[in-house]
Amino acid sequence: MVIIMQAGAPEAEVEAVIQAVEKAGFRPFVNPGVERKVIALLGKMDAEKAELVDHFSALPGVERVQLISEPYKLASRRSHPEPSLVEVGPVTIGGTQLAVIAGPCSVENRDQMVDTAIAVRNAGANLLRGGAFKPRTSPYSFQGLGVEGLEILAEARRITGLPIVTEVLHPGDLDAISQYADVIQIGARNMQNFRLLQDVGTAGKPVILKRNPGCRVRDLLMASEYIMLEGNTNVVLCERGITTFEDATRYTMDVNAIPVIKRLSHLPVIADPSHAAGDWRYVSAIALSAIAAGADGIMVEVHLDPSMALSDGPQSLRPDKFSELMRAAAQVAAAVGREVVLPG
Amino acid sequence: MVIIMQAGAPEAEVEAVIQAVEKAGFRPFVNPGVERKVIALLGKMDAEKAELVDHFSALPGVERVQLISEPYKLASRRSHPEPSLVEVGPVTIGGTQLAVIAGPCSVENRDQMVDTAIAVRNAGANLLRGGAFKPRTSPYSFQGLGVEGLEILAEARRITGLPIVTEVLHPGDLDAISQYADVIQIGARNMQNFRLLQDVGTAGKPVILKRNPGCRVRDLLMASEYIMLEGNTNVVLCERGITTFEDATRYTMDVNAIPVIKRLSHLPVIADPSHAAGDWRYVSAIALSAIAAGADGIMVEVHLDPSMALSDGPQSLRPDKFSELMRAAAQVAAAVGREVVLPG
Amino acid sequence: MVIIMQAGAPEAEVEAVIQAVEKAGFRPFVNPGVERKVIALLGKMDAEKAELVDHFSALPGVERVQLISEPYKLASRRSHPEPSLVEVGPVTIGGTQLAVIAGPCSVENRDQMVDTAIAVRNAGANLLRGGAFKPRTSPYSFQGLGVEGLEILAEARRITGLPIVTEVLHPGDLDAISQYADVIQIGARNMQNFRLLQDVGTAGKPVILKRNPGCRVRDLLMASEYIMLEGNTNVVLCERGITTFEDATRYTMDVNAIPVIKRLSHLPVIADPSHAAGDWRYVSAIALSAIAAGADGIMVEVHLDPSMALSDGPQSLRPDKFSELMRAAAQVAAAVGREVVLPG
Amino acid sequence: MVIIMQAGAPEAEVEAVIQAVEKAGFRPFVNPGVERKVIALLGKMDAEKAELVDHFSALPGVERVQLISEPYKLASRRSHPEPSLVEVGPVTIGGTQLAVIAGPCSVENRDQMVDTAIAVRNAGANLLRGGAFKPRTSPYSFQGLGVEGLEILAEARRITGLPIVTEVLHPGDLDAISQYADVIQIGARNMQNFRLLQDVGTAGKPVILKRNPGCRVRDLLMASEYIMLEGNTNVVLCERGITTFEDATRYTMDVNAIPVIKRLSHLPVIADPSHAAGDWRYVSAIALSAIAAGADGIMVEVHLDPSMALSDGPQSLRPDKFSELMRAAAQVAAAVGREVVLPG
Repeated sequence: MVIIMQAGAPEAEVEAVIQAVEKAGFRPFVNPGVERKVIALLGKMDAEKAELVDHFSALPGVERVQLISEPYKLASRRSHPEPSLVEVGPVTIGGTQLAVIAGPCSVENRDQMVDTAIAVRNAGANLLRGGAFKPRTSPYSFQGLGVEGLEILAEARRITGLPIVTEVLHPGDLDAISQYADVIQIGARNMQNFRLLQDVGTAGKPVILKRNPGCRVRDLLMASEYIMLEGNTNVVLCERGITTFEDATRYTMDVNAIPVIKRLSHLPVIADPSHAAGDWRYVSAIALSAIAAGADGIMVEVHLDPSMALSDGPQSLRPDKFSELMRAAAQVAAAVGREVVLPG
Repeated sequence: MVIIMQAGAPEAEVEAVIQAVEKAGFRPFVNPGVERKVIALLGKMDAEKAELVDHFSALPGVERVQLISEPYKLASRRSHPEPSLVEVGPVTIGGTQLAVIAGPCSVENRDQMVDTAIAVRNAGANLLRGGAFKPRTSPYSFQGLGVEGLEILAEARRITGLPIVTEVLHPGDLDAISQYADVIQIGARNMQNFRLLQDVGTAGKPVILKRNPGCRVRDLLMASEYIMLEGNTNVVLCERGITTFEDATRYTMDVNAIPVIKRLSHLPVIADPSHAAGDWRYVSAIALSAIAAGADGIMVEVHLDPSMALSDGPQSLRPDKFSELMRAAAQVAAAVGREVVLPG
Repeated sequence: MVIIMQAGAPEAEVEAVIQAVEKAGFRPFVNPGVERKVIALLGKMDAEKAELVDHFSALPGVERVQLISEPYKLASRRSHPEPSLVEVGPVTIGGTQLAVIAGPCSVENRDQMVDTAIAVRNAGANLLRGGAFKPRTSPYSFQGLGVEGLEILAEARRITGLPIVTEVLHPGDLDAISQYADVIQIGARNMQNFRLLQDVGTAGKPVILKRNPGCRVRDLLMASEYIMLEGNTNVVLCERGITTFEDATRYTMDVNAIPVIKRLSHLPVIADPSHAAGDWRYVSAIALSAIAAGADGIMVEVHLDPSMALSDGPQSLRPDKFSELMRAAAQVAAAVGREVVLPG
Repeated sequence: MVIIMQAGAPEAEVEAVIQAVEKAGFRPFVNPGVERKVIALLGKMDAEKAELVDHFSALPGVERVQLISEPYKLASRRSHPEPSLVEVGPVTIGGTQLAVIAGPCSVENRDQMVDTAIAVRNAGANLLRGGAFKPRTSPYSFQGLGVEGLEILAEARRITGLPIVTEVLHPGDLDAISQYADVIQIGARNMQNFRLLQDVGTAGKPVILKRNPGCRVRDLLMASEYIMLEGNTNVVLCERGITTFEDATRYTMDVNAIPVIKRLSHLPVIADPSHAAGDWRYVSAIALSAIAAGADGIMVEVHLDPSMALSDGPQSLRPDKFSELMRAAAQVAAAVGREVVLPG
């Protein structure tokens, strides 16, 4: 940490900062700058101390404080130089083979779910998604089937062999979801629902943590820290588009975030082109771009009849389009040293 | 709702859309456009049907669908043309007198809280804020005193007479919080934690709902709808800055949102300049700007010694600065036909 | 400037950085950090050297480089602690009395311009705006009357006594514009048209420099530096809204920028609520908020009949609404120790 | 165009709008809505009339006006359903083979330029970039060699056979640049310098138009319209990152924009990963992602010794990294049916 004093800050203020630094257990190191003093802090700066930034920056005469080290610890590649692998049944997320998570936005009924599951498995998906509890912008929208939806998902798994990914919204639903799900998803809107993160951290299941569209990469990493601190290191991050001024698409896929996360963290990172685009016509191009950028997988919404979907119809691919995407994905994956296994 | 077809969409696709519209219970009305067909939907378009946008936009030949009416209902000024008043003890939020909510970010200990409460009351605040359960970006940061914090808040209320505002993070804490708080706050990070909104909607207390910094005004209004649908219409909206590319301040106060919300909704709207700025040096200017723009109140972080604050020190005002702000606020309020009552 | 090395950077890389620092004329100062080395640069760090950031950050082993001092010099309050005053005929921008610049977006014809000029003067404006050369998003839109427009502006000045503000788009028009204008405006889209800034810097007229809606405050200050370096320090900055994800208004007024600029720079800063809102219904509230935040003036689009305006009709006030705004502005200005002089 | 009236707008206001519509040469078509009237405009709505939106939206009783057709004409895929090909010497931008434009940010001296040109050609580039006139945020930064730089570029072309791309900043330099350049670049900061666009439109050379980081895709398309209206349809669009709140990278590559532009326009679109990232460590991943998304080419900054570059060092690749990128690019291009030809 480096504390930058205001130009011309009186000696007494500099002294007070030095004393505060010492009191906090660091050795201060004053750079004899020409225009302004800069005080470096020596001593182990671990994550617990990162919040001291706030304290020091409120002292008189301080212009600003800059962290030199990042504030996350368990998520940092420095604490774990090798990429992490997250095992979900037969699938290893973060390995050479890409995770392909596909399925409808919401579980709507048994036939829709099972038929979709068969279709996506036959096209090359190795994990099944489907929402039983849905976070909807409007209270008037379909809110999901709840436990009935979980049972349908379990049946689809039994039939296809695909592990299932489903979202939790409320701590009270966690037990039920844990009984059925292979992977628990924290949706974008709950990325900073810290108490839910902690609850999920103790549930003993792999977690997909989606980036909130208004949050920075470092906030996503800090959110993953909440889960890992509870002892669950099986966390997969998911980039799904950020809010920007561009309105030609619903969100803007932050494709930069993929190599950035790879550099800062050991956690696997996947991409959700369906939410990033909000329009099925762009989903395939964005999915391929994420794979080329180094993503460990993709999560794609597929619906047998998007015009009848109870949620997210406009961004869902039909099974035939998804099959086309899988064939292209296999080629792009191979081009960057990864693999998508196409059945048959 | 208006469905815009692609230029040159074949007649069969137009027909299919017309049938879908009829099936959904509307009367279709086809505009004989020169370049493309536009199908208007006649019939009561209530909020429940707003999600049909998604269905129709996924039909073949549809370019896009545009809502003509807004998707929120209870929050809309059209359903309630007069401004709503929210009563909290002796304070009426939304009336001529401005709500001035002040206090520390976190309750840290009894003395800090009581002394601050006295200081802000003496300066002109009419509501007291203080966090007992804290949502922190980092799990290594101070997370609040919990129920002990609530008890301290209650004591500060007993001493000063100021009603208390405090935040809920987890449904499991709601009973305890309801016992103590006069107003329950939903923080920015939980604005789209829809299940928590529903839980709070049934708690029978006035609610301050803070805007998530990555969400649009209409998302804020939709979130308030979740609370009001449960029968609780005592909702106060709070603009607290949005995420933008500008990094000179932590967030960008969306001052435009104040007159926008006033036009679209009957709910009172207040502003939080402390979070919008992230730097105490800008808090007073931003607070005054919000009042001039028509806000029904302000929420300001005040700390006796910001350099020792366990959270949000850099954006907290000292009591003397807060007093200065109150005197200026009284003048600006008077200039726009509102009132801040200064004691003594 | 502080150079932060990667954790575990080998000694040879640290040495190479030290040598590069010395070669650039600085004295390096190595902080013996526990996890990573941080090298501070001692010696006069003036603006010319600010670009060294780029060089040093490309050296092997460097994590990143942070500027301690700001890169602008002439615009900085440190080089000129007192607020600057810009004199335009009888008006002093930056003094106690606010600059009120009003008029139509475009000069459309003689009667429209003269009648508007009289109306805004009678309401309290002290400067007249009007575009003769217009930057339009679409080439199919009205592009302005050119020199004829300048002549009409001059006549409006002769009749009302109001100094005139008009925009330059092309270096080739600068001579003609300088002949007529009292203040030359650089529009938002040309804020980083650096060659035009230099040309305007030599024209000997006060300049209003509008912030580009996609640029940070520090970019605005750097742009002003281009003008001032040519010897023209009569620069007034103008905040006019930034691009954000919020689409309820055309842009988001960055009201925070007003106190930020006041702290960082000595230059006067005004606000343009008309462009920030893009909708006349919000213009007055935003104008008052800017005054309360400390702006040195406002720039407002006024049109006799907005529905017939050749440009920016939807964001233009009618004269009667503008008069109302002036009366409110006078009260808010007084509340913050400033003045708007209402005629009669 | 559709005009949406306010709910409950009186009949007289509806009538006035209908008359205004007729006066403007359209046939009005009133939808008998339940809650509010919607008036559709029948008749040829060409780009010249798009600005009528503004007029109509300022009429009393109008809630808002929505364009049904896009406001650009020559750039629209509807006016030209086949993809356009832009020929530059032996290279066809928009065809199967990708354009690979590489070189230093700035021309610094003869040896640097020639050596870089040879290096990028040998790695697979088919066009050479280099700035002779540089737009720099700071007036204290290197501003380019000017005409001397153009001469050096010409020599590099003579030696390598690569056509050259260079930027114009000022209309006064256009003649000189046209004499040397094969492709004229309009930089991001000048995307809405409309007069320069018009000047370049008459220069008879292919143009690369870079997207301003604060502008929407539709603004980019409107800007291209300025060039094409002058008779020059050889326009290549370039996505180079937009400004967002994410600060882990300098800009955010809007990879969505690639399929969006492909759908809306017939013009070729390339991507500049160097500016989008601002950090060489991310350039290759982003370049590959753009190719996978369907870009017609990439533009990459390459410098023999980035730590000595006079501009943009941190985002420049060394020639060996660029060679690696080319080999990966060839594979990803093949995976999506495109081609990068590697020499030897």
